[in-house]
Amino acid sequence: MGLTLYDTTLRDGSQGEGIALSLDDKLRITRQLDRFGIDFIEGGWPGSNPKDEAYFEEVQNMNLENAKIVAFSSARHPNMKVEEDTNILKLLEAGVDYVAIFAKGWDLHVKEALQVPLQENLKMIEDTISFLKENGLNVFFDAEHFFDGYLSNPEYALKVLETAAEAGADLLVLCDTNGGILPSQVRTIIKDVKSKIDMDIGMHAHNDGELAVANSIVAYEEGAVQFQGTVGGLGERCGNVDLCSLIPTLQLKYGEKLVTDQQLKQLKPLYYFVTETANLIPRNNKPYVGKSAFTHKGGIHVSAVRKNPHTYEHIEPELVGNERRVLVSELAGKSNLLYKLKEVGFDLNDFSDEVIKKLIKKVKKLENQGYQFEGAEASLILMAFREFKDYNSFFEIEDFRTNSINKDNHTYSEAVLKMTVKKQKVHIAAEGDGPVNALDNCFRKALVSFYPEITESKLIDYKVRVLNGNDGTAAKVRVLIETADLEKSWTTVGVSTNIIQASWDALVDSIEYLLLIKEGIRII
Amino acid sequence: MGLTLYDTTLRDGSQGEGIALSLDDKLRITRQLDRFGIDFIEGGWPGSNPKDEAYFEEVQNMNLENAKIVAFSSARHPNMKVEEDTNILKLLEAGVDYVAIFAKGWDLHVKEALQVPLQENLKMIEDTISFLKENGLNVFFDAEHFFDGYLSNPEYALKVLETAAEAGADLLVLCDTNGGILPSQVRTIIKDVKSKIDMDIGMHAHNDGELAVANSIVAYEEGAVQFQGTVGGLGERCGNVDLCSLIPTLQLKYGEKLVTDQQLKQLKPLYYFVTETANLIPRNNKPYVGKSAFTHKGGIHVSAVRKNPHTYEHIEPELVGNERRVLVSELAGKSNLLYKLKEVGFDLNDFSDEVIKKLIKKVKKLENQGYQFEGAEASLILMAFREFKDYNSFFEIEDFRTNSINKDNHTYSEAVLKMTVKKQKVHIAAEGDGPVNALDNCFRKALVSFYPEITESKLIDYKVRVLNGNDGTAAKVRVLIETADLEKSWTTVGVSTNIIQASWDALVDSIEYLLLIKEGIRII
Repeated sequence: MGLTLYDTTLRDGSQGEGIALSLDDKLRITRQLDRFGIDFIEGGWPGSNPKDEAYFEEVQNMNLENAKIVAFSSARHPNMKVEEDTNILKLLEAGVDYVAIFAKGWDLHVKEALQVPLQENLKMIEDTISFLKENGLNVFFDAEHFFDGYLSNPEYALKVLETAAEAGADLLVLCDTNGGILPSQVRTIIKDVKSKIDMDIGMHAHNDGELAVANSIVAYEEGAVQFQGTVGGLGERCGNVDLCSLIPTLQLKYGEKLVTDQQLKQLKPLYYFVTETANLIPRNNKPYVGKSAFTHKGGIHVSAVRKNPHTYEHIEPELVGNERRVLVSELAGKSNLLYKLKEVGFDLNDFSDEVIKKLIKKVKKLENQGYQFEGAEASLILMAFREFKDYNSFFEIEDFRTNSINKDNHTYSEAVLKMTVKKQKVHIAAEGDGPVNALDNCFRKALVSFYPEITESKLIDYKVRVLNGNDGTAAKVRVLIETADLEKSWTTVGVSTNIIQASWDALVDSIEYLLLIKEGIRII
Repeated sequence: MGLTLYDTTLRDGSQGEGIALSLDDKLRITRQLDRFGIDFIEGGWPGSNPKDEAYFEEVQNMNLENAKIVAFSSARHPNMKVEEDTNILKLLEAGVDYVAIFAKGWDLHVKEALQVPLQENLKMIEDTISFLKENGLNVFFDAEHFFDGYLSNPEYALKVLETAAEAGADLLVLCDTNGGILPSQVRTIIKDVKSKIDMDIGMHAHNDGELAVANSIVAYEEGAVQFQGTVGGLGERCGNVDLCSLIPTLQLKYGEKLVTDQQLKQLKPLYYFVTETANLIPRNNKPYVGKSAFTHKGGIHVSAVRKNPHTYEHIEPELVGNERRVLVSELAGKSNLLYKLKEVGFDLNDFSDEVIKKLIKKVKKLENQGYQFEGAEASLILMAFREFKDYNSFFEIEDFRTNSINKDNHTYSEAVLKMTVKKQKVHIAAEGDGPVNALDNCFRKALVSFYPEITESKLIDYKVRVLNGNDGTAAKVRVLIETADLEKSWTTVGVSTNIIQASWDALVDSIEYLLLIKEGIRII
């Protein structure tokens, strides 16, 4: 068997806290996994609940390019005939060619959790697998808790595998269900298994020790041919092994052609797709696919990376669909700022050395006051723009006011705004869920007839950070606002002792930046 | 040399995107790291900026129990005399006994990034280390990019180490600066280094391949004696190795006594402390210290874990200061709450089963709405108190109002409050730096003549978190307020769609809690 990738995002992954995938979510994820080049997609446990059953019905209509759908189940119940176990029968009705059967590989579990004799556990495995093979199915056997089981009672653990092999299993998957095994233990154990049982082996790792990727790599080195995991490392407790870390490692570092180069470039989009569908927040510092994975901040790093990216990047970001980013921060200097401006389209020749120096000085001064342009690039660009050329703002704020009134333990907020837009005076009032929301509503109300494109964007995140932590609400606050339209998102910043002022500044920047893009002001 | 832990959260860690630690943050983290049992704390690079310099001045007044502070720097500049390099001279002025010097271990870097001859690089290392040794310092040498350098040009990489050793370095730290090395490569390389150079070795791993922990473990297995990393794996790109994963692995699985058992129990609190201080969101599925690390959801898991936790947990959560959580289980909820109440002094016999049930139900309901009592225990206690006995509040709020007015780009805030205290009606106005500060001032103004002890406390931190991240300022917000008097601090929470309401609720709790303590209401 060649190497195969097995995704259990929809089954094991969905056991993670806070994850609840709808049927539609699962089908859409299935489509993406198939396109990406995943060989096996474990869709669920049809015997466990109607939602999982429904998945197997619907997925048959999907016309997948490559992936095989796998139905999952425990072995037959103790002291029950396999042909009477509805769990198992549902596998036959699931319309799949591949099933995964799990059973205990650890005597402790058999005795204390299942509470059956060790021999009965073996019989359950034998009966189930033979039955399914007789019915024409391919059977993957998952030896649950295998590694802990081997450490506790190696003879029994191996007996479990042998039983499955003799009953006709097509693959023996060794599971580190508690996620705590060490790489050196994986190596010793798999060597022993391979020396005694002539069967293909798969690996199913969990990340409780932050060693799931390492353990899967050892399994690969010791001859495992199938690797089970989830996209983004979703799953119970600390999750399953993250396929987004494992796949690029095996493909780019061990030279295994698991998916095509073109498919590998879809790795980061796949991660974002699954993460967003599961309503989770993408992790920026995630290896390979995180937003910050190839982001350089320290001045020395930036300067070196501009000369030769290989100096600070272990792989080329484009190979996994990611990109290099350079941050402007207090650690940086001239290189960072220039890189950033060039990146957004400024022609650096338009900047005299004097203007550059002025800009850097301003950036450092503002950063000392608490501004953070890192991650608030829209504000940085606006600042550069305001210093540069004859820049005419889209509007002029005269003043504003916001009130919050509490009655009967409920608070209502309203804002009033006076401004000038395209030479017309505007005086607007609006309500909101708090003073900043009220101001945002006011601002948009004021601008929408002049700039209808305002409606395409909305505020998606609002962060407050108190600086000089000793003095609570009387200290300076830094507000970061993230705004998004259909294609992209941008972040702006405001700093002040007054939180409303800081929020307002960030809000103004967020709208002004939108208009800058939309009105097509040529930056070059 | 026994095994030592080396933390670089303040230096390498702070190079992570979005991380900007103030001087105060750094000192507070230093205190926690010292208490935890960290041996070396890399405080910064005094020659690089005034903020880092200031750290070294201040930290000298801290009276640490155990940790040694380390000052970091590059080797001397090319073509400059070491005694004329202000970078190096600042190390002498930093008031430390330990310094860490880094230099290139990879010929590619020397030639393309530094652009100096290979020999000069060696001279830089030799001069710098000898100079610092002559000045009585302990010197750790960081061979930057060592593993990539060894793969590219092993002779040169080893020459770099030998040069450092001969110049008197006390420890050679091998750095996987790009974070992409594989565990099997680490093993081969370190074996070779140990066979050729008779020196103590340290390991400095990065997580770009999700292998930092595995690589550090291999280094340990091959005889490394010092492990450098950050709390929570902060750092540039994908971060440094996470000490919160590495330490428990070495201590609990390899039996190395790196810190005391008592200190190890502070691992989770340490993670939360550093994460919150850096204004990051704690990751729930983080190995060992994540909120979900020992959380069981699947029905089978829950049932097994109640019979024998060893069945689904690779270590006992209490060992690292974490706890088992079982979702959808009233029984687990009950023990947590009772434990908490007992911890703060309630006599549990005073609570009828009915009141307990009522409390748990309320906690769960509030948590579903976004409340987070973990870390906001004062609010939890107040809630228990309000349900319990005949509790008479110290005051009754009628209503309040807060306005912020912006004129000439400056915002002024004011609040007006109506309440009843000790049967007297009070109607107060106050100004402030924002609506919440104005309300806080108002509240205190109203209470101070009745409860003069109010003045002993002040608000020291104010945090806002937007929940349901999709909708910016119109979403629910959770406000955490930290208040402190001379002896202790306490945190309270408020949740609402309106940020003023949420802030107000947290504010009221913070004052009420203070009065509860001060007025000597006996909890037992």
